[in-house]
Amino acid sequence: MEMVTLQAYLSSRKALVEEALERLLPWAQTPTTQLRAAMRHSLLDGGKRLRPILVLACAEALGHSPERFLPVACAMECIHTYSLIHDDLPAMDDDDLRRGRPTCHKQFDEATAILAGDALLTLAFELAAQPIAGVDPQESLALIRLLAQGAGMAGMVGGQMLDMLSEKRQLSLAELQTVHAHKTGALIRVACVAGGRLGGATPDQRQRLADYGEAIGLAFQITDDILDETGDSQLLGKATGQDRQSAKATYPSLLGLQASQQEAERQVHRAIACLEPFSSQADPLRHLARFILTRTH
Amino acid sequence: MEMVTLQAYLSSRKALVEEALERLLPWAQTPTTQLRAAMRHSLLDGGKRLRPILVLACAEALGHSPERFLPVACAMECIHTYSLIHDDLPAMDDDDLRRGRPTCHKQFDEATAILAGDALLTLAFELAAQPIAGVDPQESLALIRLLAQGAGMAGMVGGQMLDMLSEKRQLSLAELQTVHAHKTGALIRVACVAGGRLGGATPDQRQRLADYGEAIGLAFQITDDILDETGDSQLLGKATGQDRQSAKATYPSLLGLQASQQEAERQVHRAIACLEPFSSQADPLRHLARFILTRTH
Repeated sequence: MEMVTLQAYLSSRKALVEEALERLLPWAQTPTTQLRAAMRHSLLDGGKRLRPILVLACAEALGHSPERFLPVACAMECIHTYSLIHDDLPAMDDDDLRRGRPTCHKQFDEATAILAGDALLTLAFELAAQPIAGVDPQESLALIRLLAQGAGMAGMVGGQMLDMLSEKRQLSLAELQTVHAHKTGALIRVACVAGGRLGGATPDQRQRLADYGEAIGLAFQITDDILDETGDSQLLGKATGQDRQSAKATYPSLLGLQASQQEAERQVHRAIACLEPFSSQADPLRHLARFILTRTH
Repeated sequence: MEMVTLQAYLSSRKALVEEALERLLPWAQTPTTQLRAAMRHSLLDGGKRLRPILVLACAEALGHSPERFLPVACAMECIHTYSLIHDDLPAMDDDDLRRGRPTCHKQFDEATAILAGDALLTLAFELAAQPIAGVDPQESLALIRLLAQGAGMAGMVGGQMLDMLSEKRQLSLAELQTVHAHKTGALIRVACVAGGRLGGATPDQRQRLADYGEAIGLAFQITDDILDETGDSQLLGKATGQDRQSAKATYPSLLGLQASQQEAERQVHRAIACLEPFSSQADPLRHLARFILTRTH
């Protein structure tokens, strides 16, 4: 699978996910149009859909077609989007732009943004609790617990709290890694494990997919930091140089640009090595890992 | 069961719930002490534990002992507490006091309060996804979907959004009822249905417990409005007269105090009538309904 084929894979899976976000989510079931509009503003804004695509690609690596797993894939995207909405709030990172558009609290107001995030988080669990043909309901319950652990106090929310607390001081590399492992790593890892579990992975395969997720999560975060330093704010849809301005610890600020790039490459190679026993059905995962190094946004 | 016995029932079930909130929740599993402290500040502050007690009492009405259902009961309390933390935020109701203590964002800060709420909501689903001996995992998945529907855009979050949007105008009685049915009614109803489903209720019993929940939810809200007008702020642990000051629509403002009291009584009688086919094992539910009329806080 060449890069041009990866782009075709990503586009087709993104289209599947976006169609499912329209079709599977209970948009009619809210008493207020404003809440729905705010949720849709942030959820349907052309994100990369990395986490849901990872769910699908990991299940596909085990020989499954992706359709049955779309509710869980959508659950991942709901959790990711809620976290962006809340992280952008004035009391948190206070961002006005996200993917080139006004953030939720800018387009609506703070109360609406808080509630839209709450509603998306809640919706994620409604989606993850849908019965899936051929999947043991015990497995779905286990997946919900993993999802909650990756998203909650032990994972993403814990990481965002750490990040807020560390804003005013210079972190060591180990501390920075702890922040990222929780804030972004945990959910990316869970997306991979989810696809693996739903696809009936063996314990060894599960562990490999978890390690793959951990490695690409880290590579993704390092390239995010690099892009904030060197990227094109037009392509990124957000201001660049913000980390440097706020004296925030990043991989480039701690390691320098070159060593950061090398560390991202090391993680990508580690990710691909995890997939060694998998067939060519795991090629999208392999190419996705390589693709992270060539990101421009 | 006399009122004095109801008090003993409520105290013993509250103690069960509070012990379970300490024991069952993964307090050690967060990378920051501040997040944990904020979650505990709001969760372990001596609330009435109405929703978890309803889960237990409904399962007990069907002949079960309460212990097995404590994780689901705790999930209800986590969702209720998260909603209070977020509702108290400056962008929402902007409250400084809750149960006589500083609200979460006053004790900590806004970012911490948003994250503590997010973490509690997430934790609720981790708890609700615990396997329960003797309960079909399909039933647990169905319960998680109900819980998400009651808490999310179709229920509580939708109701809070309606409430925020209606702050600046005078609501009709029908509109006020829609707000409450979503904002507080949905979760109380789900607590009762949850206890019923876990207890193996027949479809008729489930419907009756749902109707019971709906009726006491309404009675509870009406007495809340009455207490804001007439209650003792010391006993309530919050300022009174706030609804009147903010010209907020309430049952007393729309119906007058006497008609509000009569409506609360009507709902309590309706709740008790729903329980007609249940044995004396449903007496705690019956007395709990009556007790709402004598609330002082």
